[in-house]
Amino acid sequence: MAALRLLAPQGQQCTQIFRPPFSASMSSSSVLKMSTPATDGPQPKLYAFWTSSCSWRVRIALTLKNIPYEIQAINLVQTGEDHAYTDKYREVNPMQTVPSLQIDGHSLCDSVAIMHYLEETRPEIPLLPQDVIKRAKVREIVELICSAIQPLQNRLVLEHVGKEQSLVWAQHWIARGFKGLDRVLAGSAGKYCVGDELSMADVCLVPQVFNARRYKVELTPYPNIVRLDHELQSLPAFKSSHPHQQPDCPPKFAGK
Amino acid sequence: MAALRLLAPQGQQCTQIFRPPFSASMSSSSVLKMSTPATDGPQPKLYAFWTSSCSWRVRIALTLKNIPYEIQAINLVQTGEDHAYTDKYREVNPMQTVPSLQIDGHSLCDSVAIMHYLEETRPEIPLLPQDVIKRAKVREIVELICSAIQPLQNRLVLEHVGKEQSLVWAQHWIARGFKGLDRVLAGSAGKYCVGDELSMADVCLVPQVFNARRYKVELTPYPNIVRLDHELQSLPAFKSSHPHQQPDCPPKFAGK
Repeated sequence: MAALRLLAPQGQQCTQIFRPPFSASMSSSSVLKMSTPATDGPQPKLYAFWTSSCSWRVRIALTLKNIPYEIQAINLVQTGEDHAYTDKYREVNPMQTVPSLQIDGHSLCDSVAIMHYLEETRPEIPLLPQDVIKRAKVREIVELICSAIQPLQNRLVLEHVGKEQSLVWAQHWIARGFKGLDRVLAGSAGKYCVGDELSMADVCLVPQVFNARRYKVELTPYPNIVRLDHELQSLPAFKSSHPHQQPDCPPKFAGK
Repeated sequence: MAALRLLAPQGQQCTQIFRPPFSASMSSSSVLKMSTPATDGPQPKLYAFWTSSCSWRVRIALTLKNIPYEIQAINLVQTGEDHAYTDKYREVNPMQTVPSLQIDGHSLCDSVAIMHYLEETRPEIPLLPQDVIKRAKVREIVELICSAIQPLQNRLVLEHVGKEQSLVWAQHWIARGFKGLDRVLAGSAGKYCVGDELSMADVCLVPQVFNARRYKVELTPYPNIVRLDHELQSLPAFKSSHPHQQPDCPPKFAGK
């Protein structure tokens, strides 16, 4: 995938444009209604923060589905015009979180809701299996990561817990979640999280393992998670959307 | 809805059988594959705990969809044969959480995954709109409640925080989430959370407001949440599935 990296000093507004090798055709599902039919309108714009694992999920999904998009960096740390807590960004996302996606004339919030929207409007490269039981397993893993692990170690919670306790806190909840997740994967995984089909579960797994490493969680007790993460990290869509490839990534990490 | 209440002393294994006025027809979706076709097999069994808001979500969804089911109470508090941390229950749910649903010969975990499975296999009474943008809004609200609020005030986290801090902690995170949620609902709600169609968003809202009241959160700043909760609470499916109607509800709360 060709990516144009715009070099911008840290803290300034950053945009980056991604163009996949071929454009995704934007056909509506045969079952669902499009309130605004997908057109050749403006390119989707993703509001994201470089280390946000929720943002990374959507970058992976867009890339896997070959949907060209533009990134608007939203700063969750430093105050400024591009900070999440501005009135301007509240218009885009009432929760003032990332990610948000402007697409088809609408502003969508929440990574899981966005992934499902992409699945329902651009189903050509699917991220959910056709089998209903496998779909339930994918969603179970998605929710396990997005509800039972990530929210307990996100930036806001760690700030609230305080600097002294935050590392131990993050390690506790990630380890607890990974213990159950590894058991679930032992029963569901093939080449990927659920059988041999790449799915939303894989899209959520890699950013969560990135967080685990960031918080120095010992991963040896979770052999299924480690194997799958290794397999997935070799795929181009996971590499090109990596936090260290983002326009708002500080220079000391960029491209590493 | 007719419900048979089995009186059982607290702490013992409790089961309860729910029979809706008419049986749901179990047709597979025209799009998705059923790995095990739905048959007239055993009645679905829901593993649940009376005050668990995640369990209540599934009880509401099953009731709204007119799916008869049996409850197997799982105790999250007192140790014993019916406790979540038994090897027996780990076979049902590797995360050892509630709810789990045994249905169509499979064991499903996680309330959001279960609701989607019910939607995909029993679509006659829908809990997602047909319009893709409205579906995205429903899922945004579902995730806001199930990822950004409930996980931060669940039993395990509050136990970890400790008795002295737990109430203030729960209030902080519920209030923070409700602030954003009320803003989202201001833009999306009609009679229900998204327009005038009952959806998964409504199914998740009422149990979360129940939790807010339990933790004495002041609700006046959230007029949309209060109005919708009041509207929804009058519906029979929300009443009959209420925590105080559950077989494992302690006698001092039962039926109130």
